Amino acid sequence: MKIVAALGGNAIIRYREKGTAAEQLSHIDAAVAPLARMIAVGHKVLITHGNGPQVGDILLQNECAKDAVPRMPLDVCGAESQGMIGYMIQQCMQNRLEALGVEAPVVGVLTRARVDGADPAFATPSKAIGPYYTHAEAESLGKYEGWPIREEKGRKWRRVVPSPEPLEILEADPVKVLFESGAVVIAGGGGGVPVIKTATGLRGVEAVVDKDLAAERLASTVGADLLLMLTDVEGVYLDYGGADEELIRSMDTCKARAFLARGEFGTGTMAPKVEAAVRFVEKSGGIAVISHLDAAEDAAAGLVGTQVIPA
Amino acid sequence: MKIVAALGGNAIIRYREKGTAAEQLSHIDAAVAPLARMIAVGHKVLITHGNGPQVGDILLQNECAKDAVPRMPLDVCGAESQGMIGYMIQQCMQNRLEALGVEAPVVGVLTRARVDGADPAFATPSKAIGPYYTHAEAESLGKYEGWPIREEKGRKWRRVVPSPEPLEILEADPVKVLFESGAVVIAGGGGGVPVIKTATGLRGVEAVVDKDLAAERLASTVGADLLLMLTDVEGVYLDYGGADEELIRSMDTCKARAFLARGEFGTGTMAPKVEAAVRFVEKSGGIAVISHLDAAEDAAAGLVGTQVIPA
Repeated sequence: MKIVAALGGNAIIRYREKGTAAEQLSHIDAAVAPLARMIAVGHKVLITHGNGPQVGDILLQNECAKDAVPRMPLDVCGAESQGMIGYMIQQCMQNRLEALGVEAPVVGVLTRARVDGADPAFATPSKAIGPYYTHAEAESLGKYEGWPIREEKGRKWRRVVPSPEPLEILEADPVKVLFESGAVVIAGGGGGVPVIKTATGLRGVEAVVDKDLAAERLASTVGADLLLMLTDVEGVYLDYGGADEELIRSMDTCKARAFLARGEFGTGTMAPKVEAAVRFVEKSGGIAVISHLDAAEDAAAGLVGTQVIPA
Repeated sequence: MKIVAALGGNAIIRYREKGTAAEQLSHIDAAVAPLARMIAVGHKVLITHGNGPQVGDILLQNECAKDAVPRMPLDVCGAESQGMIGYMIQQCMQNRLEALGVEAPVVGVLTRARVDGADPAFATPSKAIGPYYTHAEAESLGKYEGWPIREEKGRKWRRVVPSPEPLEILEADPVKVLFESGAVVIAGGGGGVPVIKTATGLRGVEAVVDKDLAAERLASTVGADLLLMLTDVEGVYLDYGGADEELIRSMDTCKARAFLARGEFGTGTMAPKVEAAVRFVEKSGGIAVISHLDAAEDAAAGLVGTQVIPA
């Protein structure tokens, strides 16, 4: 089976953890161990990953050092996070494969997602990124950097950026070539660096592409049978956190679309995962599963998590 | 012709420049423009690059932000710099190619160089990296971090790390697959992230691999005919900066080895370039050229720079 596995960035740097390299490597190792076993029994796997907490840390480092080192724009920081996380996944995966006696190259590809400069998302920045600010800091950043700033819980402010649709993975061809050559490919980190096409060529933009929607593009690129979205909850819930909370074990794309339409799922958390699942299943006829990071094998076998199946 | 072009990190962030993203993109664009023209007339090019100033900036950002964000080890910072520089090269190269009507994927591969944990270089750290410190800071870092610190010119201190030999590019197979598929490949950034093989698997180490020696490994991987080392001087000089300064236009490997043996070239600057050139030419029978970053075409044609030819 051809599988695209998407690892959540929040599952790599966890809540209340500092996010040291050792902590990140340990969570990544736990996440790739079941994927390595799946490769050992003959499945072909492409890994993609989020970068929220990591790019947040890089932005904060840029901020703290701004008098000494010029701040890099968000596209460049995103590319840095791909290097950081891609390398760590590569190391963990290769070690797991070697322990299982599997010889396969593990390779990280820097990835850009082409977005439309006229995407309506650019008019309504929605994705909070980077450090939290006080009200005074937020006002000053809004004024001097021109950043849209949004108030979060607890009188904290954060920069918000647009989250446009990924139209195309610009590295689709090389990713396909590598995948078909038998390599375990890591690609699409953080949703890919968003770039737009201008009269003078490609230009990076200060935006964030949803990594699950980008994962769907990659799944379509390599002709995946299964899109596995691995996160920090057991699956998709109805009335999440409410009195009638209920794990959905399986839903077809029709039902999933209905749930999406009535706003059952959290914007920016579960909704884009379900959206990516629906798009993938509708286009490919394959199956998508949303499950906990540590349960990839059982999720692929349909034993845990939420399956999205053709209608 | 198959060409491996190595771009110097110091040619991307230049002396007395701040190293903004715009400055770096502008120098990268100037460097890749002639390479794009060479691709347009049918040559196949793999690009590798240094990362000295960039990883120095990332280390400084880590330092400034250390109370808020855990400092990443040098291997992870090196991987970040590959993401940053690889992405910028990719954007500039693809735009140059499209302007010339060339359709070829441009792809950046995260690269690790396997080194020997018993390499004598680990006993004698030689490569200065990252920010400059005062004497007091240096003493404290030596004491609390265990870093070897070396005094540089002007009563400034810097951390020094080992520079072991690159034995193997771990991504050699995927790099070859991509190169042969017709992609313009960016690989081996900063010499590759150095990793050692341990009883429990691969482990990143706090060291720096010389990017020209890594370029030689990549040139051998793809069976290059020409290794082009592009830097911020016109070529290789005898008595550089002295009264009898003289640009060498051509030397065979035998002569080059003799010059190396008598210490004609600067350690850590020109000597590793000449060493990489000699190794490449001896093994492959190809030609190596060391020249200025902006002059890749003329250098490939033998019109400028220093050619190293078979004996």
